Amino acid sequence: MDDVEILLVEDNPADVELTLRALKKNNIANKVQIAEDGEVALDFLFGRGQFSSRNTDNKPKVVLLDLKLPKVDGLEVLRNLKSNPKTQTIPVVVLTTSKQESDIIESYRLGVNSYIVKPVDFEKFVESVRDLGLYWLLINQTPT
Amino acid sequence: MDDVEILLVEDNPADVELTLRALKKNNIANKVQIAEDGEVALDFLFGRGQFSSRNTDNKPKVVLLDLKLPKVDGLEVLRNLKSNPKTQTIPVVVLTTSKQESDIIESYRLGVNSYIVKPVDFEKFVESVRDLGLYWLLINQTPT
Repeated sequence: MDDVEILLVEDNPADVELTLRALKKNNIANKVQIAEDGEVALDFLFGRGQFSSRNTDNKPKVVLLDLKLPKVDGLEVLRNLKSNPKTQTIPVVVLTTSKQESDIIESYRLGVNSYIVKPVDFEKFVESVRDLGLYWLLINQTPT
Repeated sequence: MDDVEILLVEDNPADVELTLRALKKNNIANKVQIAEDGEVALDFLFGRGQFSSRNTDNKPKVVLLDLKLPKVDGLEVLRNLKSNPKTQTIPVVVLTTSKQESDIIESYRLGVNSYIVKPVDFEKFVESVRDLGLYWLLINQTPT
């Protein structure tokens, strides 16, 4: 699991399935780690709990973060990542159904790299996942 | 100039020309404002100097920021934008020839949304500009 490129933080199994299908359609589903709540996401990124033996120097190229999550919610995960020098260089893309202005503003205040509202239509969703996958995996540069 | 979608901060006329050509090739060159140094960029975004009558509520959807700039350098522009609540929600993409690890890390520390190393090859540069233009203009969401 050391070469994870995408960390998908999503509690809804149907949405996980949908995102994986969209990634697979675009041949970018091979290095995805799923975190089903905010606590698992933080454990993965900071090498705690079940991930205590993980080498956290291997950072994902992007974290796809839902906002409504059990245990630790998405904004809290974002706050943790962006306030810690160890993790603040990891790009975080909020991927949510929320169009709430307060969620968008707060995400940017906390340092989100990008905010995407999930299209309801599956074909459009597949396109968005393709475009964001290619952008963050191929075009964007992170520290090595 | 109230409907500017892209603020391109670049002092090298050849690079400005190249970026505008790449945007034009992808039909996204109609709402671009050029700032030839960091001071002009800040004046534009904060409505100062020659832009004192500009309505700064009209924010660009993305700022493409070179790092090596006269007067106020790119990292200083980034620091100003991301430390001010009025401008911190504006996506900033560093677009530079610098692959220096220290520039990449410092940009993320200061809250850059994305960091792109300009491809040397023109065709690849056109592709990158297309992909980043579509991503930040069409897929990414900012506060309204």
